Amino acid sequence: MIFASDNWSGAHPAINSALSAHGDGMAAAYGASDLDKTVERRFDEIFEREVAVFFVGTGTAANSLAFAAVNRPGGVVLCHREAHVIEDECGAPEFFTHGARLAPIDGADGKIDPLNLQREIARFKPDFVHAGQPMAVTISQPGEAGTLYSGDEIETIARIAHARGLTLHMDGARFANGLVATGLTPAEMTWKRGVDILSFGATKNGCWCAEAVVFFDPDKARQFPYIRKRGAQLFSKTRFVAAQFMAYLEDDLWLDLAGHANRMADRLRAGIDASPHARQAWETHTNESFAILDSGLAETLRGKGAVFYDWNPPHGVHDLVGDDETLVRLVTSWSTAEAEIDRFCDLIA
Amino acid sequence: MIFASDNWSGAHPAINSALSAHGDGMAAAYGASDLDKTVERRFDEIFEREVAVFFVGTGTAANSLAFAAVNRPGGVVLCHREAHVIEDECGAPEFFTHGARLAPIDGADGKIDPLNLQREIARFKPDFVHAGQPMAVTISQPGEAGTLYSGDEIETIARIAHARGLTLHMDGARFANGLVATGLTPAEMTWKRGVDILSFGATKNGCWCAEAVVFFDPDKARQFPYIRKRGAQLFSKTRFVAAQFMAYLEDDLWLDLAGHANRMADRLRAGIDASPHARQAWETHTNESFAILDSGLAETLRGKGAVFYDWNPPHGVHDLVGDDETLVRLVTSWSTAEAEIDRFCDLIA
Amino acid sequence: MIFASDNWSGAHPAINSALSAHGDGMAAAYGASDLDKTVERRFDEIFEREVAVFFVGTGTAANSLAFAAVNRPGGVVLCHREAHVIEDECGAPEFFTHGARLAPIDGADGKIDPLNLQREIARFKPDFVHAGQPMAVTISQPGEAGTLYSGDEIETIARIAHARGLTLHMDGARFANGLVATGLTPAEMTWKRGVDILSFGATKNGCWCAEAVVFFDPDKARQFPYIRKRGAQLFSKTRFVAAQFMAYLEDDLWLDLAGHANRMADRLRAGIDASPHARQAWETHTNESFAILDSGLAETLRGKGAVFYDWNPPHGVHDLVGDDETLVRLVTSWSTAEAEIDRFCDLIA
Amino acid sequence: MIFASDNWSGAHPAINSALSAHGDGMAAAYGASDLDKTVERRFDEIFEREVAVFFVGTGTAANSLAFAAVNRPGGVVLCHREAHVIEDECGAPEFFTHGARLAPIDGADGKIDPLNLQREIARFKPDFVHAGQPMAVTISQPGEAGTLYSGDEIETIARIAHARGLTLHMDGARFANGLVATGLTPAEMTWKRGVDILSFGATKNGCWCAEAVVFFDPDKARQFPYIRKRGAQLFSKTRFVAAQFMAYLEDDLWLDLAGHANRMADRLRAGIDASPHARQAWETHTNESFAILDSGLAETLRGKGAVFYDWNPPHGVHDLVGDDETLVRLVTSWSTAEAEIDRFCDLIA
Repeated sequence: MIFASDNWSGAHPAINSALSAHGDGMAAAYGASDLDKTVERRFDEIFEREVAVFFVGTGTAANSLAFAAVNRPGGVVLCHREAHVIEDECGAPEFFTHGARLAPIDGADGKIDPLNLQREIARFKPDFVHAGQPMAVTISQPGEAGTLYSGDEIETIARIAHARGLTLHMDGARFANGLVATGLTPAEMTWKRGVDILSFGATKNGCWCAEAVVFFDPDKARQFPYIRKRGAQLFSKTRFVAAQFMAYLEDDLWLDLAGHANRMADRLRAGIDASPHARQAWETHTNESFAILDSGLAETLRGKGAVFYDWNPPHGVHDLVGDDETLVRLVTSWSTAEAEIDRFCDLIA
Repeated sequence: MIFASDNWSGAHPAINSALSAHGDGMAAAYGASDLDKTVERRFDEIFEREVAVFFVGTGTAANSLAFAAVNRPGGVVLCHREAHVIEDECGAPEFFTHGARLAPIDGADGKIDPLNLQREIARFKPDFVHAGQPMAVTISQPGEAGTLYSGDEIETIARIAHARGLTLHMDGARFANGLVATGLTPAEMTWKRGVDILSFGATKNGCWCAEAVVFFDPDKARQFPYIRKRGAQLFSKTRFVAAQFMAYLEDDLWLDLAGHANRMADRLRAGIDASPHARQAWETHTNESFAILDSGLAETLRGKGAVFYDWNPPHGVHDLVGDDETLVRLVTSWSTAEAEIDRFCDLIA
Repeated sequence: MIFASDNWSGAHPAINSALSAHGDGMAAAYGASDLDKTVERRFDEIFEREVAVFFVGTGTAANSLAFAAVNRPGGVVLCHREAHVIEDECGAPEFFTHGARLAPIDGADGKIDPLNLQREIARFKPDFVHAGQPMAVTISQPGEAGTLYSGDEIETIARIAHARGLTLHMDGARFANGLVATGLTPAEMTWKRGVDILSFGATKNGCWCAEAVVFFDPDKARQFPYIRKRGAQLFSKTRFVAAQFMAYLEDDLWLDLAGHANRMADRLRAGIDASPHARQAWETHTNESFAILDSGLAETLRGKGAVFYDWNPPHGVHDLVGDDETLVRLVTSWSTAEAEIDRFCDLIA
Repeated sequence: MIFASDNWSGAHPAINSALSAHGDGMAAAYGASDLDKTVERRFDEIFEREVAVFFVGTGTAANSLAFAAVNRPGGVVLCHREAHVIEDECGAPEFFTHGARLAPIDGADGKIDPLNLQREIARFKPDFVHAGQPMAVTISQPGEAGTLYSGDEIETIARIAHARGLTLHMDGARFANGLVATGLTPAEMTWKRGVDILSFGATKNGCWCAEAVVFFDPDKARQFPYIRKRGAQLFSKTRFVAAQFMAYLEDDLWLDLAGHANRMADRLRAGIDASPHARQAWETHTNESFAILDSGLAETLRGKGAVFYDWNPPHGVHDLVGDDETLVRLVTSWSTAEAEIDRFCDLIA
């Protein structure tokens, strides 16, 4: 009953097999091998267009270096107030951009409210140097709250961003979970709706360490090779990332794994809804669920071996959780077993 | 009728005289002259204790370098959501700290609400690297909204900050105006209530370019000479700053000038209160006033030669200003003439 | 006949087996798993003392973050003029330290000349802010030129560094090759001779991606967890690094692999020495060899399938390579076959 | 007999008068006043073309922000090994560029040797990310060694820089002294020979604090307003810099002051040449002279009230100064009196 995070899961056997298969023999380092090139072209197919793709080691690196690629002096990146980039990356986005500011935008369900976004952007008058200059909007799909933007919602945000010349970045740490939950194709969830740069995460969903920055306009990536190397994210044996992606993207493995994780979460949410001692804090459809438990219950569950984290309620929301209650996050993964879910649901019933 | 900003004012004649008096002859550069040392000791007297004081050229430099002095990796500085450091310094604080984040705290009247501050700090669990680590709280006295903390309010915030080992910084760009308005002494408005570092501004109040960073614990300033030089803020002919401070602090010139500016603002506010076409947006007692004018009136005033800026309402406040109204900021200075105020008040009557 | 670099090699089967073995089941993320802890303690045994060890993804990250850990404003890191950190890391050390300067020190054979080091340090007068402040000395063992410091030479440099309070850092990207070539133990090649921080590399020698920063004084590492996370080098599934190190350090695998690489290089150097068309540019005893070839020969070799890089002669050395000659680097690895060497030697004979 | 530095001098009376004249009344802040605009246009006249000019507070700021304006990830600025930017700015250029590296180029007389420059640039292969990418060459006119490039020499360096797409920056902290000594016009010493950006210094030559960054191609300055503000160098009362420049550039005051300083140095050098106890370390024609004195003599001079600094010999030069000798720098200024020179010359005679 480990629901701490999907990054507590290991690597899928197919990923390990790919590593073994490609471990043999010599291959050009620093992204120049045939395997690297093959995988790069695989991204073109998946996104139905030519993209520029760069492997990196962590999701934090993907997000931070993406911002660095569109950085301007005094730059401001607009994000949801609970976004991973602002809450959970220890200032890496600010660090890699030489101090760009992340401006928090409020919005229900962990999603940027377009009206708030518009208002915030409008506060920046052109050429008024004191306020700095907005440079990008970033959304997470799915977000830290486990919720999803529809294709239309993504497009609305893209229109607002593009009207002021801002880049739209998507943090796709759980990109596959989002695809499965929305039923959109990779293209439909990104560039067809206006996303310019994507952090494509595979680590949480069955890889060891496989993240990529995807530029839908390769011209914008001209300086990125230097940005990545200066950022200490150019691995020498890049084929170890390429090999993981190769297996991950083959025969829809990535979508199958994400589908399993999402289904396990659905099953878990059904159990929460059925329990008199628990309720969903807000509705989610991905592999992250948020539950408000009777406080005693949280302790009992932990005593029985369940692992999960307490969670902060959204900023400024003070009445969501009662005094005798605990807000917790429950994350399923590609390797969650149905039996774990069922045992947990029995315990909260 | 120039109420655009107090930094539109020139330099007081006494400041210019001091510059002429000290322009002659050779003197050690880079802060080593007798004059520099004399002025540094003058700060000790004013603050009733030994302080470490460093001259810099701009208020933005004072704030940014102060944060740099207490910086930690992944550092977070908590400030009011409308603070100058987060709204008006083009990311300089983030830049000089290598990406420290400014976390906005809400609170009425442009002042940090202690409960909100406590809640925000509580979100940072010790040793939880993902969230970064809070390192400082900064307050402005007076703040961007022209309002003031009482001594007790400063102490409350200091207690919260110090309980978590955070430095309390005060942005004193209009420090003298705050002293006059509160009736506190420099010591009472700072270290006696828990302020650790002060940005001491004199430029707006009759100098050309005279700002200082004041450390109440000189031990904390050990690396500051390098921080200032690396930050391009070590002037060679520092006596030009020292000379300004010398005159500024002599015979209470600074308090007299600030007192004049505050009185002119009081007179202005009386006129606003008396007008049927204008009202104060919120109450202030310093040299900054905020008025909501009938929109036509704002244009009329500008047509008659008045100069002032439109102002953004606080973040998230959408009902302060009516559709036919304009929120403006009106700033008086040491050189504002009574006649200007009276003419303005006649025009809005 | 691939002698381009040891990072063209793949991963040793034992490394892949370890990954497969540890891929199963859930484990705490971000370095908190039992496996992570076990491997950390393994480093204590290897170095015969308690150390603080942090896994990172690249050698550039290890070096850059190590410098960040000892950074000071205006800081200067003294390194050999041909050091990897100054020549081949795209400014990452400067980037991660917010602009520390790498001051190049000359010295024969790719090694810092102690007298030059002393002279350079002596140029920095205490408290003279203009010059900045030296903060560390870094040496590579072995270095970019494939040469080695003896234990005594390391100690001499350590004494000079410590006399001015500077940290001594060692770039051990090929640490195992250095150990085998010198016959020293890990302790003897590091802290027993005064090394304070070590970048411990395993990637080139049979791993996929396994680097570590080792602090011999754990107290100095207090802020490092934040530095690593902010630097986007905290992997979520850290056990994938831990598993590699586990296998790498077991049963002397690491020393065996490095020994093989060094022996292959010895065999290669014997062939070069025997050839009338080639000579060693300078003497080396590790897995890197530098040869001056008749230019035509270099092309012939490449035509026959040999892969190797042209190399820049040391800065300021203009007479090493004749007009009809080419300076090349030849690197062997854990997976180099004796037959490759023999074929190459035949071709140059 | 103060020959410590020209920045020990005060401000010329005309500068102080200008400050007094412009201290009265209100004027738009942050560079928007009529006076600011007038002075900006004065720069156009002086340089015989439209330029973009930005006032800043220190020479270190001018140089550092100029580099920031042309920065690239992994950027390298090539400079002379003894350049002020690398030796005396406490890492500010690296800091403001987020870690660009200053690559030292050797050359006699404190001047970049074009052949060495070409060789160093040639070490950077296009698209080889590991080495970073050169982005600018910077020369000082006059340089730290008091020497001068001829117009042809400037052009030679410009050609080398431009052939690789690099910006040529000139550090003109003593620009006027260079103009007078070479007899060139401002245009002839800069853009007509290929200089792209100039740090124009006036502080040392009779101002208090007046430095400017001059872009000969205004298009390159588009982001500079944000770079300057983020760098804490946008003064609010910019007219205090503008007023200084106004007086400085009027009626050739700047050239007269520099001419005086240079002539005083000529007189001093004649005394050194005539002395049996002193000799010039190298030939100079500006207001900086470098003398090798019998060690006892240096102490005697100081005992008699002379003030000057000991100087480091160039890097790697170990035989310039005998064991019983001292290398010192002697700087004259706009305010040096002939009598001071004569007294000094008598003492060394």
